[in-house]
Amino acid sequence: MAGEEFVVTPWKVEGVVDYDRLIERFGTQPISDELMERLLRAAGERHHLLTRRIFFSHRDLDKVLDDWEAGRGFFLYTGRGPSGPMHIGHIIPFYFTKWLQDRFGVNVYIQLTDDEKFLEEERGLSLEETRRWAYENALDIAAVGFDPDKTFIFQDTEYIGNIYPLALKVARKINFSWVRAVFGFNHQTNIGMTFYPAIQIVPSLFEKRRCLIPAAIDQDPYWRIQRDIAESLGYYKTAAIHSKFLPPLTGPTGKMSASKPESAIYLSEDPKSVRKKIWQAYSGGQPTKELHRKLGGNPDVDVAYQWLYYFFEPDDRKVEQLREDYRAGKILSGEMKEILIEKVTKFLEEHQARREEAEEKLRLYKYEGKLAKEMWGKTYE
Amino acid sequence: MAGEEFVVTPWKVEGVVDYDRLIERFGTQPISDELMERLLRAAGERHHLLTRRIFFSHRDLDKVLDDWEAGRGFFLYTGRGPSGPMHIGHIIPFYFTKWLQDRFGVNVYIQLTDDEKFLEEERGLSLEETRRWAYENALDIAAVGFDPDKTFIFQDTEYIGNIYPLALKVARKINFSWVRAVFGFNHQTNIGMTFYPAIQIVPSLFEKRRCLIPAAIDQDPYWRIQRDIAESLGYYKTAAIHSKFLPPLTGPTGKMSASKPESAIYLSEDPKSVRKKIWQAYSGGQPTKELHRKLGGNPDVDVAYQWLYYFFEPDDRKVEQLREDYRAGKILSGEMKEILIEKVTKFLEEHQARREEAEEKLRLYKYEGKLAKEMWGKTYE
Repeated sequence: MAGEEFVVTPWKVEGVVDYDRLIERFGTQPISDELMERLLRAAGERHHLLTRRIFFSHRDLDKVLDDWEAGRGFFLYTGRGPSGPMHIGHIIPFYFTKWLQDRFGVNVYIQLTDDEKFLEEERGLSLEETRRWAYENALDIAAVGFDPDKTFIFQDTEYIGNIYPLALKVARKINFSWVRAVFGFNHQTNIGMTFYPAIQIVPSLFEKRRCLIPAAIDQDPYWRIQRDIAESLGYYKTAAIHSKFLPPLTGPTGKMSASKPESAIYLSEDPKSVRKKIWQAYSGGQPTKELHRKLGGNPDVDVAYQWLYYFFEPDDRKVEQLREDYRAGKILSGEMKEILIEKVTKFLEEHQARREEAEEKLRLYKYEGKLAKEMWGKTYE
Repeated sequence: MAGEEFVVTPWKVEGVVDYDRLIERFGTQPISDELMERLLRAAGERHHLLTRRIFFSHRDLDKVLDDWEAGRGFFLYTGRGPSGPMHIGHIIPFYFTKWLQDRFGVNVYIQLTDDEKFLEEERGLSLEETRRWAYENALDIAAVGFDPDKTFIFQDTEYIGNIYPLALKVARKINFSWVRAVFGFNHQTNIGMTFYPAIQIVPSLFEKRRCLIPAAIDQDPYWRIQRDIAESLGYYKTAAIHSKFLPPLTGPTGKMSASKPESAIYLSEDPKSVRKKIWQAYSGGQPTKELHRKLGGNPDVDVAYQWLYYFFEPDDRKVEQLREDYRAGKILSGEMKEILIEKVTKFLEEHQARREEAEEKLRLYKYEGKLAKEMWGKTYE
């Protein structure tokens, strides 16, 4: 497996991702035990996405903590490319971002890149569609429960008037050669797409203090450019904390994809559909019950176990017990799936209930909350 | 001279421009006698910028007249790159545009490209500077006297929120390869600059009828792209009517340039400075008065005569008499200059007086006039 090729870009994840090699390739830092403990101490609470290294890599997280301890503060920025319905893998970083907001009491900026998803020609989405998805996705994000006075959710095509001058300043510092090298653009890439990185960089400059970006590692190329130009514009280099991808239900290759609906569970799915998809998920078990009892299963490739580990079983001791029991053949693949089905069903039930009530809240995040109001009154230049 | 190289791009005019060859190079059409007469008939009035072929080339002007005669109407769009103070060469197309508006009663959209002039790195202008120039230039444009209910003057960094969605649709149709071929961009060109053509194309789509763009011919490359994509977006191919460049005071090469202040007369100059610059202008006369009386001068290179011909002596018979008399040696170069000085001084005096009063009017053009109000209520998608 180690020799296999894998690809991670903001638009594509292919193959079995070797996260250690990705750290090298991207030039980021692994989160050391020491740094993790320092973050958890500052937060005053443990979080399994950290202790289990689902958030596994970073840039300048230590400096964020320096700033925090010195009273200079920081802010959070993350986003969503609204190209379709959100699945569980999409929402996890938002739940983690909310946890960071709760623990540190900081502002969160959430960008909905309806422009980017329209400009990506391969998707074949109209702007009307990406704008509609931006609204639908925003409801899911609102359901996460951010602080209405400290959270600003904005959609590029709506908020562009407030950020365009600063986007121009960013864009003037980036040439075609650079975005070609970083994103693999070529001469056939449309001029909207080549400009777009400027738009994704701007929110990392929303405050004159350090920005911390919790997001999947595929977004890191933007932050690399940001870090090369931010100081020359009078801002901080952004920090980032990078997550792995929740494995697709179909097995340990690539990431969940809208083109393969069986690979993911969407936030809007009902219990029946959840049960069906998880039952069909890739398993680390043996061909028969008897063999499984005898030889044990492989939790490292068992998707049900992996989902429990990544997110759905927060209790470290319980998840360790599941691993041991599965390896020992004490837990069957079907039993592991049942455990996951129960967790996912409950999670979605609660999420969906909050989403039902989220419309009002979304108005606060987008327009009428304290931070949103401030943001609509500002132009970044 | 015919073999000499010349360059005409939106950012550079060099050498002695051969306008016939430019028509071939750009693939535009010369304005035939018949088409000119048809335009003048529709306008119900002659204009020397047309009869003298200062506006010498076009795209689809005949279709504009078809539309006009069939009651479908059309609209006018022109603009200004606010990189510094405006000179006489800059304002002439605006006076012509106003004439078209007066004759046809149509809407005029005027774009101030503060973004473009910032993105052009060679200029070294800050965004604050181009925005300040946008305001200063807008006052000069307001002094021209457009119809306050049918004219919208807008500045890209202010109006972007209303046009960004449509700019994205335009941008998705244009790739790097294309803007490289049309504008000579390369891998070092910044990504704001390569995106910018989308921003300049959008106003040609402001109404669902034909747009006529009166502007200097160097802007034509944008319209070429526009014409290749407009119909696929559900809009009309734009029409254009192209002007020659008012010759620099320094002689018949290139165009007037901010880097050579002696080459141009700025709209803010006082009579003393006007007199001094015109006295120093390139002349088509002989070295001595005696030789001039004997051999006559060359009006084709005499800048004073050329300026009278291009704009400042509207009377066709008078200007023809000046040419003959100069050629015959009856008028000395100094006399020709005195005639021009009087005309330019009077023109500037009147323009400056109108500019003094233009602030109030500019508010109508930008925000509070009938068309402006409509435009601020619209988002182009």
